[in-house]
Amino acid sequence: MLPETLQPLLTVMDLVAVAVFAVTGAIVASRKEMDIVGFLWLGTITGIGGGTVRDLLLGVPVFWMREPIYVVTAIMVSIAVYFTAHLAQSRYRVLLWLDAVGLAMVTVVGTAKGLDAGAGPVNAIVMGVITASLGGIIRDILGHEPSIILRREIYVTASLVGALVYVAAIGMGADRAFAAAFGFAVAFVIRGLAMTYAWSLPTYRSRPGAPPRNEG
Amino acid sequence: MLPETLQPLLTVMDLVAVAVFAVTGAIVASRKEMDIVGFLWLGTITGIGGGTVRDLLLGVPVFWMREPIYVVTAIMVSIAVYFTAHLAQSRYRVLLWLDAVGLAMVTVVGTAKGLDAGAGPVNAIVMGVITASLGGIIRDILGHEPSIILRREIYVTASLVGALVYVAAIGMGADRAFAAAFGFAVAFVIRGLAMTYAWSLPTYRSRPGAPPRNEG
Amino acid sequence: MLPETLQPLLTVMDLVAVAVFAVTGAIVASRKEMDIVGFLWLGTITGIGGGTVRDLLLGVPVFWMREPIYVVTAIMVSIAVYFTAHLAQSRYRVLLWLDAVGLAMVTVVGTAKGLDAGAGPVNAIVMGVITASLGGIIRDILGHEPSIILRREIYVTASLVGALVYVAAIGMGADRAFAAAFGFAVAFVIRGLAMTYAWSLPTYRSRPGAPPRNEG
Repeated sequence: MLPETLQPLLTVMDLVAVAVFAVTGAIVASRKEMDIVGFLWLGTITGIGGGTVRDLLLGVPVFWMREPIYVVTAIMVSIAVYFTAHLAQSRYRVLLWLDAVGLAMVTVVGTAKGLDAGAGPVNAIVMGVITASLGGIIRDILGHEPSIILRREIYVTASLVGALVYVAAIGMGADRAFAAAFGFAVAFVIRGLAMTYAWSLPTYRSRPGAPPRNEG
Repeated sequence: MLPETLQPLLTVMDLVAVAVFAVTGAIVASRKEMDIVGFLWLGTITGIGGGTVRDLLLGVPVFWMREPIYVVTAIMVSIAVYFTAHLAQSRYRVLLWLDAVGLAMVTVVGTAKGLDAGAGPVNAIVMGVITASLGGIIRDILGHEPSIILRREIYVTASLVGALVYVAAIGMGADRAFAAAFGFAVAFVIRGLAMTYAWSLPTYRSRPGAPPRNEG
Repeated sequence: MLPETLQPLLTVMDLVAVAVFAVTGAIVASRKEMDIVGFLWLGTITGIGGGTVRDLLLGVPVFWMREPIYVVTAIMVSIAVYFTAHLAQSRYRVLLWLDAVGLAMVTVVGTAKGLDAGAGPVNAIVMGVITASLGGIIRDILGHEPSIILRREIYVTASLVGALVYVAAIGMGADRAFAAAFGFAVAFVIRGLAMTYAWSLPTYRSRPGAPPRNEG
């Protein structure tokens, strides 16, 4: 599969991820009982924030400046959530699963863009993780919610492993479509399993080799 | 009126807006009883923050890097507020009205810069809104105040409508000075009326078509 | 001393500063009992955050995109702190003194990079201060700690004076190595003395010429 033929797929994935992240931003706005403009701000910044920072770091044009479709998508999604979020029976579960899809998608897209822009493997992985988590971090700061990096669950980890898998697959000569599908699947499965079984990484206090609590 | 003859006006408006926003940042610093360096930080970042992010997104040189006058203005304003804020009888009202002037000005300047840099109408409006509100959002995060997007008042909305008016006027062939004056007036009047009459948009809970509270 | 021969020194100082700031980020992660990924995020963003914003503002390539050594250093430091922070008898004192070294180093490096990129003296000083303090500000926002600009101690001030000294020395024809050493020493000594003797600047309430408290 030629890189050119993959481009539309990456664009579609980017668009789906923007929409999905915008939903998570707008749902936070609904929990905070914001007005429609709050929905627009939080939906849009969550949808495009991670990719924006990635592009600024890479020194390439910001992806949504050339094509208004991304911002328009985020705006329409935010408005739709404003009027329909009450229909969702279990907002929180929906939020989490949508977020897992978006997480896996933008991890792959972000890592791929990093490699394309000439970043080495380490920085490409950092680009994937930034794209996947920075929108959510900004969302949580603006919505005054505990940040995803403070919560003790497997979130950024899923993105980190997915990005690693993508870079490793490319490094071993896999074609981009396979590497993308593999990286997506790994990130999504890790996040999904972590949610289902409430997995978490050991925290500082409970890490291997930590002294007993009363010595700390 | 030729675009070249408008340039000095845009520069003056930018400078006034930087000064006005720096005042709002420094007043937050006074409420938090910061030291002079806190005033400098909060005044300067509020004054130039929104325009800085706008320029980074547009991929143009950051407006204050070439001309130190903006940073110098923000610094002098912050120092002045440190020594004089106690003279203002009603700090909060002054803050709000100054902020409304700055809001309307940078909305127009930001939207105009967006169009000039080749952004389409949607993204130009986003540029105007970002320039107008991001400095204040950063100010509120750093000052540990509730963010303007959490408060239920017409603020970003005024900027949004002003930016829309500017883009629509340009689109209908108006000259830039007229479009700028019209956009400024609309944003300022909406914000002023909203403050005077305590207007607000319906929140998520009270939006049209929302289920009664006990179903939510 | 020729600028070319100074370049390796600046790179080493940058690297030391990244490591030192990463330690402060990781120690905040340990206080918040985060997991390893939280350590990585907070360590890395604190280590490279200030310099990243500096480079974006200057319009030059972000320093760690070309050379993965910076990110790798921040990652390794964060992991090391995850496993060893409990060994430090007095984490907080160590944190403060390491931070003072990093503060002084990146002030000089940031100011020098500002001048090199064509910024005027005022903006070069701003670049130094941003490089020195923005990583810590982001760290405190993400770690939900009171920001360094809210705390009433001499911190940003030390950076400000160090940057001023560097710019003044260069302006008076000093060679870069001397100016760098002088700026570093001044910033470090001010910060060190401020910590030792608990110096602070007058706050807004207690500034010279302020009205008595009951009039305020």
